[in-house]
Amino acid sequence: MNIAPLDPPARLLMGPGPISAYPSVLRAMSSPLIGQYDPFMTATMTETQELYRQVWATSNDATLLIDGTSRAGIEAAIVSLVKPGDRVLVPVFGRFGHLLAEIAERALAEVHTIEVEWGQVVPVSAIEEAIVRVKPHLLALVQGDTSTTMNQPLDEVGELCAKHGVLFYTDATASLGGNEFDADAWGIDAATAGLQKCLGGPSGSAPITLSDRAVEVIRSRKRIEAGIREEGDESSPDFIRSNYFDLGMILDYWGPRRLNHHTEATSMLYAARECARVMLTEGRSAVIDRHRVAGAAMLAGVEGLGLTVFGDVAHKMNNVVAVEIPEGLPGDEARGALLEDFGIEIGTSFGPLHGRVWRIGTMGANARKDTVLTTLAALEAVLRRYGVSVPAGGGVEAAADVFAASSVREAM
Amino acid sequence: MNIAPLDPPARLLMGPGPISAYPSVLRAMSSPLIGQYDPFMTATMTETQELYRQVWATSNDATLLIDGTSRAGIEAAIVSLVKPGDRVLVPVFGRFGHLLAEIAERALAEVHTIEVEWGQVVPVSAIEEAIVRVKPHLLALVQGDTSTTMNQPLDEVGELCAKHGVLFYTDATASLGGNEFDADAWGIDAATAGLQKCLGGPSGSAPITLSDRAVEVIRSRKRIEAGIREEGDESSPDFIRSNYFDLGMILDYWGPRRLNHHTEATSMLYAARECARVMLTEGRSAVIDRHRVAGAAMLAGVEGLGLTVFGDVAHKMNNVVAVEIPEGLPGDEARGALLEDFGIEIGTSFGPLHGRVWRIGTMGANARKDTVLTTLAALEAVLRRYGVSVPAGGGVEAAADVFAASSVREAM
Repeated sequence: MNIAPLDPPARLLMGPGPISAYPSVLRAMSSPLIGQYDPFMTATMTETQELYRQVWATSNDATLLIDGTSRAGIEAAIVSLVKPGDRVLVPVFGRFGHLLAEIAERALAEVHTIEVEWGQVVPVSAIEEAIVRVKPHLLALVQGDTSTTMNQPLDEVGELCAKHGVLFYTDATASLGGNEFDADAWGIDAATAGLQKCLGGPSGSAPITLSDRAVEVIRSRKRIEAGIREEGDESSPDFIRSNYFDLGMILDYWGPRRLNHHTEATSMLYAARECARVMLTEGRSAVIDRHRVAGAAMLAGVEGLGLTVFGDVAHKMNNVVAVEIPEGLPGDEARGALLEDFGIEIGTSFGPLHGRVWRIGTMGANARKDTVLTTLAALEAVLRRYGVSVPAGGGVEAAADVFAASSVREAM
Repeated sequence: MNIAPLDPPARLLMGPGPISAYPSVLRAMSSPLIGQYDPFMTATMTETQELYRQVWATSNDATLLIDGTSRAGIEAAIVSLVKPGDRVLVPVFGRFGHLLAEIAERALAEVHTIEVEWGQVVPVSAIEEAIVRVKPHLLALVQGDTSTTMNQPLDEVGELCAKHGVLFYTDATASLGGNEFDADAWGIDAATAGLQKCLGGPSGSAPITLSDRAVEVIRSRKRIEAGIREEGDESSPDFIRSNYFDLGMILDYWGPRRLNHHTEATSMLYAARECARVMLTEGRSAVIDRHRVAGAAMLAGVEGLGLTVFGDVAHKMNNVVAVEIPEGLPGDEARGALLEDFGIEIGTSFGPLHGRVWRIGTMGANARKDTVLTTLAALEAVLRRYGVSVPAGGGVEAAADVFAASSVREAM
């Protein structure tokens, strides 16, 4: 049987993620496999935990990877922390707030939501008011929601949760690595992410970090599966309703007991380690700053093309911008032209924003001057072809000015 | 910060899996990423489904990948097919039967098991007797259990299940690709696997196939998450208690509706596609035959070294053999010497067999003459160093004879 080898087309991925991975991450994934308990394997797992402690800015011992996409990390956190009937509060400011609520509902939690209009973040006062009213066991709050590009401020929320005795979980899938994140300083009990956004890798591995308080809740629900259970391994009646996402067992697999659970996805571990290595080698704050500058340049660029930016720009993530599709322009067709003629992908939108905005990302490997300027030049050409009146070179120039000002600042 | 690039040691993985991947699978994973809805991406997903229909020997439309390790596939099948309170029957003949029972228990099924001694398979008559007695909704049966090396015959079980109106799920993680498997002819309703055994890839993607009857059960539990739910998308009260493993939503993501669920793990999709391509290019039955010959050679080889093989050899999987550790030999230390001095990994064991047998695999890329002979030569050297009296060259010669006889047969 004749089946052609895989041969993906050249693409510059400037959407809300997944984005083009760092070349060294792709190379790391082609490294030879090793055995599950090979000393090199366990050492690589331990080293990767240490690297991700730095990525998350935490000293949490319980810092590891979940084998699955970012929503696997979310589900692992929620089903392990929440028993059926527990109250969960979810402030919703975009699609991924709905997802957290949905996953908590599937875990049979009593879910309470508060919502703000898409394009806004949730005022901390509204979160406090709801905490006092609902008295939740867990607050589940998205940090960066790509559906609206908003970046929810978290720095005051942990203190609130501590004051009211609430566990604080945040989904940092879209934001980690491109925006400030400070797990310990912000009092976060559990946070999860994915590689396919600012970390510059493929989807399929979900970094997670858990505070001691979160680990205590998880340990109280301990159950070790038959087949590897030993004397003294009692099963809790409140056992976690998933084996794959039982963080207690996963912690025992990553921890010194090395109790067999799944077979770690070796190539994804390699990818995750390399994503962290790239970030920490360049410098954590330097990478976040690179995202800040590239995001500011893209924002200036689309405005320089005369386009309107959606949402509360003061609370936008660094790594993605939503731009309103000009009146009368067939948005998906224009996106298709950008892909077909320039090999550049930008994003469509979900729910209330579908057909109304495009989402343009500048993240991970693609938070760079050349990718930003190339995208703006191509976008200008496509807009003009569709009859939109655009200032010639207005996008590229405005963005280049941002990069120039930033390098002047750096040189000072 | 200075962090060394990843540099795994050279290893020949001859354990019960994970094993050394096919080089072309590793190369496929370093291919550039593409967007989630790029025409190439959706075409690659569709093509991969078609390739896996051939791997499974099925015409099931619902043939796809779960993003996670093999146990993610198992949990997706069980939580999607089994409601709380449903009766599940699990014949147990090794560790992975316990795992199926465990996952069904976490899903709050009423779980019934029947057990045979490790090293045996379950007589079909015992399965029928239990089906009649228990009247289960689902029979969950491991095909190949690496913990004992046994290969449970499945060819008569589907008919039994059909006769008694029982759904039939099988876990083919360890066996698929190296042993006969005939999803449609055997009347299987759901089957899952992983890449890290006979398919010759890394852990982290779980192929799954579902009969129309299984899909019907899943569809009856339909729930589409808020945020992408549309008018007419009613939620069933029996909704699946997991979002990540909701096969209904995953089917809608892989199907023509392309409803957003997770972000497909692109590099693992590339790996899965390449695993299937390697198998189907060489020829499905040729690959199974290669496993049969390599397994027979390894069996003859360890016997040629004077070692005793564990279990019912007539029902052994082609791709793994369990050998009793000679009396008085420190098994784990000798395995360590094989790894340290020859770069060859063989496996330890779980539960009642721990310290009693080693498990030696011949699967995927390593179901080859050179890997079998090299492993036997190295094992002989290690055994001799530990004072075991072994016939000089007895392992290599016996194995080489099997390969020679096989190529004579082929030439005829």
